[in-house]
Amino acid sequence: MAAPRTVVPEATLRALVSNIFTAAGTSTEHAETIADVLVWANLRGVDSHGVSRIPRYLELFAKGEANPKPDITVEQPRAAIAVLDADGAPGPVALSHAVDQAVSMARSAGVAWVGVRGTVHTGAIGYYTSRAAEYGMAGLGIVAGVPNMAYPGASTAAVATSPLSVAVPAGKYPTVLLDMATAVIALGRIAQHKNAGTPLPEGAAVAADGTPTTDPAAAKYPLPVGGAKGAGMSLVFELLASGLVGNPIMSRFHAGGPEGRKHRQNAVLMAVDISAFGSVADFRSTVDATLDAVKSLPRDSPDRELLFPGERGAATLAQRRADGIPVPAKLLGNLRADAERIGAIVPDGL
Amino acid sequence: MAAPRTVVPEATLRALVSNIFTAAGTSTEHAETIADVLVWANLRGVDSHGVSRIPRYLELFAKGEANPKPDITVEQPRAAIAVLDADGAPGPVALSHAVDQAVSMARSAGVAWVGVRGTVHTGAIGYYTSRAAEYGMAGLGIVAGVPNMAYPGASTAAVATSPLSVAVPAGKYPTVLLDMATAVIALGRIAQHKNAGTPLPEGAAVAADGTPTTDPAAAKYPLPVGGAKGAGMSLVFELLASGLVGNPIMSRFHAGGPEGRKHRQNAVLMAVDISAFGSVADFRSTVDATLDAVKSLPRDSPDRELLFPGERGAATLAQRRADGIPVPAKLLGNLRADAERIGAIVPDGL
Repeated sequence: MAAPRTVVPEATLRALVSNIFTAAGTSTEHAETIADVLVWANLRGVDSHGVSRIPRYLELFAKGEANPKPDITVEQPRAAIAVLDADGAPGPVALSHAVDQAVSMARSAGVAWVGVRGTVHTGAIGYYTSRAAEYGMAGLGIVAGVPNMAYPGASTAAVATSPLSVAVPAGKYPTVLLDMATAVIALGRIAQHKNAGTPLPEGAAVAADGTPTTDPAAAKYPLPVGGAKGAGMSLVFELLASGLVGNPIMSRFHAGGPEGRKHRQNAVLMAVDISAFGSVADFRSTVDATLDAVKSLPRDSPDRELLFPGERGAATLAQRRADGIPVPAKLLGNLRADAERIGAIVPDGL
Repeated sequence: MAAPRTVVPEATLRALVSNIFTAAGTSTEHAETIADVLVWANLRGVDSHGVSRIPRYLELFAKGEANPKPDITVEQPRAAIAVLDADGAPGPVALSHAVDQAVSMARSAGVAWVGVRGTVHTGAIGYYTSRAAEYGMAGLGIVAGVPNMAYPGASTAAVATSPLSVAVPAGKYPTVLLDMATAVIALGRIAQHKNAGTPLPEGAAVAADGTPTTDPAAAKYPLPVGGAKGAGMSLVFELLASGLVGNPIMSRFHAGGPEGRKHRQNAVLMAVDISAFGSVADFRSTVDATLDAVKSLPRDSPDRELLFPGERGAATLAQRRADGIPVPAKLLGNLRADAERIGAIVPDGL
């Protein structure tokens, strides 16, 4: 039996998020940015990266590991690269700023690479790359985080489930939006299997001692997608996202000690200005023609749809924008309780 | 029983390659570049991308699909982007030029993105990204090619096994070199199973009609790594590598007709100037510390080594540089025959 859900209009959910973060000490502007990013994930059906993350942000604020009033600085040592020091800002604040910086720099340089140093919980990284796509650019993003994924040959968490996202604007189709973890299965999905009492697929996760398991209660670390491939992607993302901004996560984590185990993330966001290569309209037509080709491939089953990355999320967004966002009653209760505890106004209807 | 192999010194194999390409009509400079790239793959143990590809290049020259005397042009519309028109040049020629262009531009802009339009057979893309690493930069590369890989829900080849490569220079360790196809299994590996009469792993390939198979004789298309993840990566690589340079491969392929089925590839090579972010020595130390962390993880089996991407290839290179490159006798015979047919000198000892 599915958990009871309440359907909440987008604007109401956004107001709740914004009120909670303002009460937690962020500026109104930052609170609205966070609301944008988290509610966007819920609108697209990525509920694991939406408002369900709010309690964790509040916990990080309380512990002093996230900073509600960050002093964000941007250094731009060359025309096409910048480093944004997030000063512990929540990911939505730091990465929204970073992608806007990348888009602005790509307008003149053609491409831009913005490293983000020292943020927490980026949320759904597809938000930022698709924001670049809304400016008519291609967006690319990677994140590095604290190790929580298996590695070929190791018996413990070695690397992180660090995601890769690429967004490419289309014409008649929604933005092509790849947003994938380097793990076979998301940690949130393991928790869902645990709650539902259903076994995990084979080859998706290992127990705390590194042995493969399909028991969601025993599963501790997801396996990297494609074994050495996913593990290798995660490792190079750490070197690019954390190494270049001088804020290594993996080496400090494995050195032991409480400092290295603290939650923190680094990221890279890139924008590529399509107009620098030629006509954006022509590019969009090429994307459409490529997606037309995908959609008209012969299918292995008549009832199986041929989807491109981001297509399902765009459909869910349209539907949830119209009909509201289903939120589990228990989560909504927790958010209301959090709001009341920190003195945030709970919008009417919740 | 393994096929009989002849061990060939690096310099001899390089001379053979160079002689063959010069006889096939390329300039001496281009022939030496091609020899560098192909023999590098053999040195690192990536024999599927080494001299075994020579007959295919010769075939493409003969058919007029590859150009031994290309008029390569580079346009640089902005500080950090360029488009190299390969004019049908073999991949090693076009992509070596492109990575040098990217490195040179990244010196001033911090990062550079070079699109390569209309090349054939790039060879091992790790060669180009590790060349950027030799200049103390990070190198990133993707390739787009003619569809030869399955797609979730489709019953035919939809996308290509397009690779991603990332190279990051280390200090005491060899360069971290990720070079992965987006497929579960390489086409060359399927052929090896067929020759050896051994079944494929489950979930690696499908037959021509899209049904899963472990029979290497029936296997036609490899499956994408991680299903929608590998397929999605391949699709966005096509949009970035082919779309931005206005030379779409997928849409023309699926439109049918002989023109769309011709072999051709596009690519993107990027260089990121580490020195623009800070001390390169500090960066190399961070990479070393991260690799130290990987190497000292607890292992799931005492005889299992913990490797980082590119480590095995670097060890093989050191060994083969010293001891020579094992080449199957049959392949060597074919190459000798090709050389004699086109009037290329076969070096002494072959």
